[in-house]
Amino acid sequence: MPNVLVHSNYGKSQVRLVKLVKHAERHEVRDLAVSVQLEGDYEAAHVAGDNAGVLPTDTMKNTVYVLAKLHDLDEPEDFARRLALHFLKTTAPASAARVEVVEHLWQRLPVAGWPHPTTFARDGAEKRTAMVRALRGGDTVVESGWRDLLVLKTAQSAFSGFQRDRYTTLRETEDRLFATTITAGWRYGAAVESGYASVRARMRQSLLEAFAEHDSRSVQHTLYAMCEAALERTPEVDEVRLSLPNKHHILADLSPFGFQNDNEIFVPTDEPFGLIEATVRRG
Amino acid sequence: MPNVLVHSNYGKSQVRLVKLVKHAERHEVRDLAVSVQLEGDYEAAHVAGDNAGVLPTDTMKNTVYVLAKLHDLDEPEDFARRLALHFLKTTAPASAARVEVVEHLWQRLPVAGWPHPTTFARDGAEKRTAMVRALRGGDTVVESGWRDLLVLKTAQSAFSGFQRDRYTTLRETEDRLFATTITAGWRYGAAVESGYASVRARMRQSLLEAFAEHDSRSVQHTLYAMCEAALERTPEVDEVRLSLPNKHHILADLSPFGFQNDNEIFVPTDEPFGLIEATVRRG
Amino acid sequence: MPNVLVHSNYGKSQVRLVKLVKHAERHEVRDLAVSVQLEGDYEAAHVAGDNAGVLPTDTMKNTVYVLAKLHDLDEPEDFARRLALHFLKTTAPASAARVEVVEHLWQRLPVAGWPHPTTFARDGAEKRTAMVRALRGGDTVVESGWRDLLVLKTAQSAFSGFQRDRYTTLRETEDRLFATTITAGWRYGAAVESGYASVRARMRQSLLEAFAEHDSRSVQHTLYAMCEAALERTPEVDEVRLSLPNKHHILADLSPFGFQNDNEIFVPTDEPFGLIEATVRRG
Amino acid sequence: MPNVLVHSNYGKSQVRLVKLVKHAERHEVRDLAVSVQLEGDYEAAHVAGDNAGVLPTDTMKNTVYVLAKLHDLDEPEDFARRLALHFLKTTAPASAARVEVVEHLWQRLPVAGWPHPTTFARDGAEKRTAMVRALRGGDTVVESGWRDLLVLKTAQSAFSGFQRDRYTTLRETEDRLFATTITAGWRYGAAVESGYASVRARMRQSLLEAFAEHDSRSVQHTLYAMCEAALERTPEVDEVRLSLPNKHHILADLSPFGFQNDNEIFVPTDEPFGLIEATVRRG
Repeated sequence: MPNVLVHSNYGKSQVRLVKLVKHAERHEVRDLAVSVQLEGDYEAAHVAGDNAGVLPTDTMKNTVYVLAKLHDLDEPEDFARRLALHFLKTTAPASAARVEVVEHLWQRLPVAGWPHPTTFARDGAEKRTAMVRALRGGDTVVESGWRDLLVLKTAQSAFSGFQRDRYTTLRETEDRLFATTITAGWRYGAAVESGYASVRARMRQSLLEAFAEHDSRSVQHTLYAMCEAALERTPEVDEVRLSLPNKHHILADLSPFGFQNDNEIFVPTDEPFGLIEATVRRG
Repeated sequence: MPNVLVHSNYGKSQVRLVKLVKHAERHEVRDLAVSVQLEGDYEAAHVAGDNAGVLPTDTMKNTVYVLAKLHDLDEPEDFARRLALHFLKTTAPASAARVEVVEHLWQRLPVAGWPHPTTFARDGAEKRTAMVRALRGGDTVVESGWRDLLVLKTAQSAFSGFQRDRYTTLRETEDRLFATTITAGWRYGAAVESGYASVRARMRQSLLEAFAEHDSRSVQHTLYAMCEAALERTPEVDEVRLSLPNKHHILADLSPFGFQNDNEIFVPTDEPFGLIEATVRRG
Repeated sequence: MPNVLVHSNYGKSQVRLVKLVKHAERHEVRDLAVSVQLEGDYEAAHVAGDNAGVLPTDTMKNTVYVLAKLHDLDEPEDFARRLALHFLKTTAPASAARVEVVEHLWQRLPVAGWPHPTTFARDGAEKRTAMVRALRGGDTVVESGWRDLLVLKTAQSAFSGFQRDRYTTLRETEDRLFATTITAGWRYGAAVESGYASVRARMRQSLLEAFAEHDSRSVQHTLYAMCEAALERTPEVDEVRLSLPNKHHILADLSPFGFQNDNEIFVPTDEPFGLIEATVRRG
Repeated sequence: MPNVLVHSNYGKSQVRLVKLVKHAERHEVRDLAVSVQLEGDYEAAHVAGDNAGVLPTDTMKNTVYVLAKLHDLDEPEDFARRLALHFLKTTAPASAARVEVVEHLWQRLPVAGWPHPTTFARDGAEKRTAMVRALRGGDTVVESGWRDLLVLKTAQSAFSGFQRDRYTTLRETEDRLFATTITAGWRYGAAVESGYASVRARMRQSLLEAFAEHDSRSVQHTLYAMCEAALERTPEVDEVRLSLPNKHHILADLSPFGFQNDNEIFVPTDEPFGLIEATVRRG
């Protein structure tokens, strides 16, 4: 019995581009990294080496540049959808196209107190993300997101009353540092009439404010509170997903030197790290 | 209507350990990074901040060290399974446990032509991987893998006859460099009586030999040939999955200087890159 | 003739710590990575394996934590000096101590428009640096710096009239993108009565404003203008050093598709990169 | 008084290239990353924006490709020297040219037990390095090196009898793991008639054998023994420099669970790390 090609996908990853938009008085900058993946009927390519249905990934790269020239990049979701639908149209074997966009943000440099018209600084590690998966003759899923923002809570964070077994040595605490790098993704329940950027702004603000104000019993507890706050402020959104690595800050042991360490000196560590993830859907 | 916790998982990632096994005449070294994730009934933790069912991820870390002390680490699959079953047993709310192990390989340093008994060198970027996902009262899936080996084919690699559209500029070629970093994963169809290491050795050899000897029409074509070769040599395996980034090597343009570049000087690039993935199941 | 130990240095690198300062109404966070290196008479340790004069690097780590507990960390230069002098005092063989501090910056999260008292976000990749090198019975050099801020100029940047040889293909341009990741360091000519933070603020502002406003003929040209502006605004500083990698943005070639690319779509690249460095001293 | 341009250097970094050498029966692969830096009279460029003496870094990149086409790349030292002398010849303002080459190594894949003629695997993280600094009308310094090989000694490694102060908590040990990533560099005292590759092979072997066989009292002690062994086996070399980060492996604390940890389970850590460096010159 011959073997079966159960699944395949292919495309181009990390197509980076910067678009400069020139107004009379000022410039704007868009900075994206785009990844494209196609799925579909690619058995001939795999089994027989027949490339007739294979659009080169180099062409995908060119297409990203051309469509970035022809259209505005104001909302990464729109650009991702445009690309996904383009590839379904031009590539017969593809039954699904998935496009991911990561947007790096630039802010104007202040000069003499005013934002400069043509000079920018990359605003930290925080990135916007968008993902569109389009099916031929079917649904298109849009997911927006946001990642790589490192945040820290120095109060209102406890972890106690947890399960203990024979290998448990962790002490209960009513007062610990809680640091995490937020990765968020959300899906829409209805047409987004206000624009994706409006949803994104409310989503960001509600997640961060909930993180700041929550009386946290655990990472899970705060994660859920963040999702609830976000769903309340973004009626356009149906489902929120958070991934919160616990960037542990361990108390330095100063007792050998005769000092107490009353939550004052911490050692931040990268490994190992807790990882807490959940998806919450609007009820 | 209240919101719904659709999915949650939590655990500890990147628990690194080195186990030293001392024989009379020589030492052995095992070098692992372990990640644990539990799923199950964690609604009380998320919604109410009730940690009674939450085993700390710190305990997971301790458990990894203790079980590494108590048991041999000869096969990462066995260690991953042992850990997964342990957490299902000790943690009532967990309905599924997923454990991933990445093994770094050390080779003995040669001294005066002989392998040294107690001195080692890390053998490149290549790593072994194992993943076990165990369901309470249900199936246990074992997946083995291997990743981060960068390989290069300088002959028998073509890409021509592909689909062209208005944005296609790529030239057809019967002779190109083909470089990729192999990530492979496989699932077992039957009990592995020969031991995982035996399968792993045949899998590695058959994938690499197929890569070397294939008359490649495309990355897809070679990927499939590699899977076919692997399935033929590893009857224990039911399904192979490969992820092959195309590490493009672009011909340097020497024409402005009056030189031809007959596949001689290449510029290796990291971004953007093609990404070709497929899963092949035994027929 | 015996071999000669020409030079040696040793120490601990990347001692990370977070200090939490609790005021009644709000918390403050300091986030440092400290590296210590000692030089001196360590011949016995190297040649004979005599460790009597070797303070363990583990002790250096402990010392960093204790001194961070005992003293404020308001100015990284002061903390670096304190550490350097401490090690000279406690470690007889050391003739020089070099301490480097990298400070990560955290900003308060805004909640309902107000900075939150106990919640913070890591403010981008930008970092403060300080280096102190203290000689036993001799001078102490203090160097401040700043690194990892990626900036971009979309106007007033040219590169033309350059030297051409047989391998030159670059086109002259009066209008190009100029992106760089600024690494700056400066040395002081006199006692810093205003405090290091005051100098640092003026240094940062003058470098960035000069970058924004300069009519650039080259990276070298702008680098020098930045240094001149900085020296003018910081009389405490004697010498400024800048390292400016040229983060090339290459015009995407859209001509095969019938489009002009009038400085609109760029491909940012990481490799290869130009690297321009210079040191300017007050005249 | 005008400010003074104390120092400047500029050039192109990370020019990557792969050269394919085709023999009748087999191919060979050379994989280099080249960095070029020029120093000299560049005051007009900095102060006045006059680019007449500035060879574009883009031209340096082209030059690397052309010279790689015209000459063999058998010894990275020779290629670095050729490039350095080229830039001094073609660029009048340059008084010094510094060229660094990092060589990635590829090994033939074994197929059916034989090295394959046209298929290769990247052989680990280990890299060869070469640096040439040429002065106009003056000396040329050649330095060879080697980096990124992670090695581990599980026996014959102690650290005891060290200096203690009030912040010392480290326990003395006669038996610890000693892991380090070797970075080595060496300078030549005479013409290298045997070829750089011959020196390099003896240097590598003597450093590694000394690491394996040394009865280590400290990192410093072993570092020096490695240098002595290397100088003995490579009469062409005048000076060796080693940089040995101490990749700490910390004993996991299993005592809370009733287990001893007799140098069996270690936790490898990346931060903080000891760093031990020295230069030894032939007596």
